[in-house]
Amino acid sequence: MIPQEFIKKLAVKNSNKIVLLVMDGVGGLPNESSKTEIEAANTPNIDAVVKKSITGIADPVAMGITPGSGPGHLGIFGYDPIKYEIGRGILAALGIGFPLEKGDIAARGNFATLDSNGKITDRRAGRIPTALCKKLTEMIQEKVKEINNVKIFIRPVMDYRFAVVFRGKGLSDKINDTDPQSVGVAPLKCTYTEEEAAKTAEIVNEFVRQASKVIENEHPANGLLLRGFSSYPDIPSMEELYGLHPAAIATYPMYKGLAKLVGMDVLKVNGMDIMDELETLKENYDKYDFFYFHVKKTDSYGEDGNFEAKVHLIEDVDKKIVPEILRLNPAVFAITADHSTPAVMKQHSFHGVPFVLYSPYARPDRAEYFSEREIGTKGGLGRFKATNEIILMLAHSLKLKKFGA
Amino acid sequence: MIPQEFIKKLAVKNSNKIVLLVMDGVGGLPNESSKTEIEAANTPNIDAVVKKSITGIADPVAMGITPGSGPGHLGIFGYDPIKYEIGRGILAALGIGFPLEKGDIAARGNFATLDSNGKITDRRAGRIPTALCKKLTEMIQEKVKEINNVKIFIRPVMDYRFAVVFRGKGLSDKINDTDPQSVGVAPLKCTYTEEEAAKTAEIVNEFVRQASKVIENEHPANGLLLRGFSSYPDIPSMEELYGLHPAAIATYPMYKGLAKLVGMDVLKVNGMDIMDELETLKENYDKYDFFYFHVKKTDSYGEDGNFEAKVHLIEDVDKKIVPEILRLNPAVFAITADHSTPAVMKQHSFHGVPFVLYSPYARPDRAEYFSEREIGTKGGLGRFKATNEIILMLAHSLKLKKFGA
Repeated sequence: MIPQEFIKKLAVKNSNKIVLLVMDGVGGLPNESSKTEIEAANTPNIDAVVKKSITGIADPVAMGITPGSGPGHLGIFGYDPIKYEIGRGILAALGIGFPLEKGDIAARGNFATLDSNGKITDRRAGRIPTALCKKLTEMIQEKVKEINNVKIFIRPVMDYRFAVVFRGKGLSDKINDTDPQSVGVAPLKCTYTEEEAAKTAEIVNEFVRQASKVIENEHPANGLLLRGFSSYPDIPSMEELYGLHPAAIATYPMYKGLAKLVGMDVLKVNGMDIMDELETLKENYDKYDFFYFHVKKTDSYGEDGNFEAKVHLIEDVDKKIVPEILRLNPAVFAITADHSTPAVMKQHSFHGVPFVLYSPYARPDRAEYFSEREIGTKGGLGRFKATNEIILMLAHSLKLKKFGA
Repeated sequence: MIPQEFIKKLAVKNSNKIVLLVMDGVGGLPNESSKTEIEAANTPNIDAVVKKSITGIADPVAMGITPGSGPGHLGIFGYDPIKYEIGRGILAALGIGFPLEKGDIAARGNFATLDSNGKITDRRAGRIPTALCKKLTEMIQEKVKEINNVKIFIRPVMDYRFAVVFRGKGLSDKINDTDPQSVGVAPLKCTYTEEEAAKTAEIVNEFVRQASKVIENEHPANGLLLRGFSSYPDIPSMEELYGLHPAAIATYPMYKGLAKLVGMDVLKVNGMDIMDELETLKENYDKYDFFYFHVKKTDSYGEDGNFEAKVHLIEDVDKKIVPEILRLNPAVFAITADHSTPAVMKQHSFHGVPFVLYSPYARPDRAEYFSEREIGTKGGLGRFKATNEIILMLAHSLKLKKFGA
């Protein structure tokens, strides 16, 4: 891929606006109708856009790789997802909307059941409900706020799962899980893989000791296991790299967190509906030059295996959102996904995602309508890496100057 | 390309089976009929597979590069052929089925004619027949078995060509040819390019001295020239990288050797026919999860310039092999080649090769039948590097977990 430093040297600011519509997991596979979700959807507005656009099929990470939401989005924003790996703990904290800061170390946690000898009998404490998880984390937070000048934040996630964030000077994520991933053994002591992390491991162990004490008489959740320690990645911002003044419109915490990670302003959305998101776009349209507009439920319906609901939502976006975005007349309007989530697979998949770029300067290709097959075989961009998308968006909004003379 | 270490972290084992059919050199060019060999062949079974597959044109090494059999196959198996260069000497030894071991150094040899002053008058000793070559190598082997604890193996190849293998501790291939590639001069002393290879050069020179003595009174082959010293490459196995338990079905020594190089079990085939190979596949189908099935003669006929015979063999594979493989119901069935060998060129060529991947999870494209043109313009994979093929095969057999959350 093109080094980001190279793009940085070419980036220029202008007032042209870019709207990037990410329909999460929108790429699919044919069901018994022989059509994918996108193909089954009636999308006259997007089809009209496709006719005037340059299109192609993008691989968010690489051919054959199934991306999580983190890597999928990083690719779209122009960051090599293999270089900028986002740890599990960080993603868990982003996912609950915890306001992470640079230098933070985060971990995923499980409440667990321990026997009288301190051995694990259930790694998930009988899958206790979220309400109990919340109560337990609050009990712990009440007693354990700081260890050795390192602030501790513990927050519920869902069911038996929680997140812990360690904030202080000189922390390192070169430490190992306390979760042995098996039962009949005691939780592990936190150990370190690099000398620089010795202090962090010590603090984690002290945290586990204190937190365990708080819940030792609870049942069934009388123990805790930590894994996926990771540090908040030091990623150059989109402003720094591309000269953009970017904003994110999303309703789910994970995507707000990912946007914040690359330096976007996360805009307030009054509700969880796509129409609420549209309202936010309109209200803020004058204030930014790049908008990341995230539609979550295409992915959720895919994971549920609900082909029809996914089709219906694509139609809703076509009918209610796309004409309104066009009315704003952005210099570049792009439509894509962070990965495919075929309803027939009920999970993220390794299939490429459609990318549609509409701009007065787009060289039209032969793709006539919104379809993975149509775009994949008649698109002018062919099959390409998603990290090129931001470069194409910048180019078509005339935000990249000529390279060389 | 994607680092193999990255794939290694995502690889998971399951019982899904992959069958990879490599029709050596099958890609072609149109003859006066305006059709390529593939296009001229009547292939109803492969055409039916193509309709349900994801397809594309792969470059085994890179656009415009004509691959030898070694690099062509390494690419398909997911090894960067530029990084893992297989030396000429090693390929010569693999080609005659010599059982190489890690640490071995191999060279290609010519018998040559020297005049009374020791100057070369014919680098190929009048192209002596293979039978004489065999006799001479046996005479030398009889007298020269070991030098300084390094075992020597000398074997005939064809005509005036032979191979020598040096086996022992601390050998290095950082040494130069003794073949000056010209006449009227004496054979060169073997010299070294790195200090670590001083001992190896000394042993080679001693070998040449002793071997030359054995044949000094022969005519016309009274001398020998060595070139292409190379060491058995230290390649991580497909098991190590991908978690596969792979087997090779091939009839020619070179391909068995290449398969062994990447850690495949080389299965016994009772005969040289494709039907013998099919029998081996069926007999061993339960024992492995990856099968490399090699069809050699598509390449041989290409090199002979025998367009019709190549067409006929493609039809035979379509009729006799493909339906039987489909009957086994593998999770992934892929068809490709290691390079093109157009009959009109009578040699390996730089043209891309068709790649067809059939699986329930393949997202179908618009390619309707087996043809370089059809697949190259309607294939959903577009034009891509062959090193992606193994990643796609693993993905479609659900042997790669999601990257990130």
